This record gives sequence, C-alpha cells and structure tokens, in this order.
Amino acid sequence: MPMQFSARNQLQGTVKSIKLGSVMGEVVVTLPGGQEIVSAITRTSVETLKLKEGDSVVVMIKSTEVMVGKNE
Amino acid sequence: MPMQFSARNQLQGTVKSIKLGSVMGEVVVTLPGGQEIVSAITRTSVETLKLKEGDSVVVMIKSTEVMVGKNE
Amino acid sequence: MPMQFSARNQLQGTVKSIKLGSVMGEVVVTLPGGQEIVSAITRTSVETLKLKEGDSVVVMIKSTEVMVGKNE
Amino acid sequence: MPMQFSARNQLQGTVKSIKLGSVMGEVVVTLPGGQEIVSAITRTSVETLKLKEGDSVVVMIKSTEVMVGKNE
Amino acid sequence: MPMQFSARNQLQGTVKSIKLGSVMGEVVVTLPGGQEIVSAITRTSVETLKLKEGDSVVVMIKSTEVMVGKNE
Amino acid sequence: MPMQFSARNQLQGTVKSIKLGSVMGEVVVTLPGGQEIVSAITRTSVETLKLKEGDSVVVMIKSTEVMVGKNE
Repeated sequence: MPMQFSARNQLQGTVKSIKLGSVMGEVVVTLPGGQEIVSAITRTSVETLKLKEGDSVVVMIKSTEVMVGKNE
Repeated sequence: MPMQFSARNQLQGTVKSIKLGSVMGEVVVTLPGGQEIVSAITRTSVETLKLKEGDSVVVMIKSTEVMVGKNE
Repeated sequence: MPMQFSARNQLQGTVKSIKLGSVMGEVVVTLPGGQEIVSAITRTSVETLKLKEGDSVVVMIKSTEVMVGKNE
Repeated sequence: MPMQFSARNQLQGTVKSIKLGSVMGEVVVTLPGGQEIVSAITRTSVETLKLKEGDSVVVMIKSTEVMVGKNE
Repeated sequence: MPMQFSARNQLQGTVKSIKLGSVMGEVVVTLPGGQEIVSAITRTSVETLKLKEGDSVVVMIKSTEVMVGKNE
Repeated sequence: MPMQFSARNQLQGTVKSIKLGSVMGEVVVTLPGGQEIVSAITRTSVETLKLKEGDSVVVMIKSTEVMVGKNE
C-alpha cells in the first residue's frame, strides 16, 4: 500500500552525479528528455537512501516552490 | 544583457492551464517530454506576467527545494 | 516496494480540519503528542489525496525549511 | 514585548545533536513525544544562536513548506 | 527574554496593504528604503497577528530561500 | 528581450562577502539602505555566476517564503 504525497511535481529520472559535503549533498538527476534537475539535500539523506550514480529516482517538488519566467 | 540566476533548475515549457483564486494562482506547465509541472504563485504574478495558455515559459526551482525519492 | 524520500522529517498524525479555497487548501494535522501542524497545499492536492477529517496521514518537511529559535 | 511570527508551526524541543560544515549546519531536535526534527541552517546561525546539545529550542516551519502523505 | 531565530534575514518595515483570500493572504511591506516586500502567508496568520495597514512588522526570510541574479 | 520572473521580491544590492563550502556557498548582499541579505546557494551556482565581492546583483525571493512578525 504505497503512500501518495501532496507534492504535485514528481518526475522520474536517473542519478547522474553526487557531490558530498560535510552537511549537504548535491544530486544531479537526468530526466528522460535529457534535462537535468539539481537537488541539494542533506548528506545524511544521500547516505540513508544509499544514492549512487545510475539509480532510478523520483524528484519531488512542492508546487509552491516553482517560479515561472516569461520573456517580456 | 540578460540576467542569470543562481537557481539551478530552469526548464522550458508551455502553459497548459491557469486557475486563479483571490490571492494565489495555479499554473500548469507542460515540458517538451510531456511531463507537467505545477506552480503555485500569487495571482498578482500571473497578472503581472500576463500569463495565458500557450505561453512559452521557463519554470525555475531552487535546488534546495528539490527532494529525491528512491524505491527501497 | 515503497518509496523512501530524502525529506528528513516525516511525522504521523491525524487530519483535524480542512479548509478549501479556490487554489489552496489548509490542512491541520494533530500529532500523537497533541501538537498541531498546519499545511498549505493546493486544493487539487487535497482532492487528489481525497483528504478528509480523521484520515491518518504523514506530514513531510524538508530539513532546509526548518528554522530554530532559542531564548536569548 | 515578544514578537509573534506568522509561521504557523512552532514546536518546543531539545537539541539532540549538531553537525557543522563550512557553510551549513545540521541540528537534530527531539520533540516531547520522542519524534526528531532535523533542521539545516547556516553554520553562522548555529554560532549566532550559540546552539549546543541540550538547549531548549523552538522549531519553526512555514505552513507552505509542509506536505501531506496518505496511504492509497 | 525574547526569542532569537536562525533565519538570517529579518528586515523592519511597515504594512502597506493586505489582500485576503479564503486560505491565503498577501501582505505588502514597505522597507525604510522604499522597496516593497510581498509575503504570502495563510489568512489565519494574518488574522492571528491582527495585521493591518500601517503596522510595524519584521519580514523574515530563511537564507536558503534567497536566490541571487547577476547580469551576464 | 529580458525574462521577467514571477518571484515578487527582487532587490538590488552589492555582494559584500562570499563563503564557500564543498556543496553550498553563502553570499552576503548589502542593500542600498545598508541592510544585509544572506543567501545560501550551491557552490556551483556561485561559480557559474562568477560571483565576487563588489558585484552588483539582484536578490530574488518568492513571496511564499516570506514570513511576517509583529510585536504582540
């Protein structure tokens, strides 16, 4: 019985690279269309999820965090 | 001389639909790969940008707002 | 095979009340200790999750969104 | 005359542990019910607040940052 | 004994206008230099704080929410 | 043809200092009125924007990230 989350944006992708600092980690995820999404999460999260290059993952973004830009 | 922003995630897309409330607005953007991104911004922003269906836009997301999920 | 998310804060609770606007919804969740957590998500998310009073839910918060206060 | 903030979620707790990086710090706070809340704030904030293990603190979270999950 | 918060950005200002929706409220705050800061908080927060035009307030922003732009 | 963004808060300022960690960077920006705004962005963003002390920049903040405080 999987859990469904309110966050409206959930995109499938593949981990391209991971960079670890003392507290934070940066995870680059490639979407099927070739675009890249960068995520900054805690190092502990990277370790808890055992994230590594090539992993199939979902990136999740709350809609209130998404801005829109348009050419004037 | 365009301005470049620190937000790492900037994806091209097309406005699919807009829903307006008194204070907030919801903008659904379709990416080239067919995925949809939902953005919740203020109604005033929707009006200031003159956003309408079919507009070419960029969705921008700060990397600290992006979570990662992985199947256990 | 459930999905595990990077968001470090995931607390079990029960939906106490829901208020719906045109675009946004406010969900109040009671934790086992009696504290309340308020969540502002889109109305569409409330409807997609079929949230209603009494539902068992998880509130999830990315650690980069948590501030700390201390008496001077 | 204390200041009251709009952030709807303010929970009392005790600092369990602190991890410091060059720029960021991770603070783990234990709530009275035993749950833990993880906060990622700047190292400078940890130092300015003189945070240390055992401190009584408040964790504060804006409601627009709280997601809700529910079993399908 | 006032509480000090980790959020690094706390600016004094005056409420210029308030717009209320069912769930959310928009508060425009004028800084001493004349710039305006817009805040989207829940309607309940506006009511709890009894915010009204002319009020002296502080706007508070977590540093992880601040982006930087620069002309190329 | 410059791009206009939905983020309601865009303030001109000057980079006062930069601190770099492995993953994150902290940028302090001085506003014309003398106030300081602190931004925590990824190190990669600092490098991509070639940010350095004295740079003229814009800080951008989504209105949903701005809290309001008021003396009781």
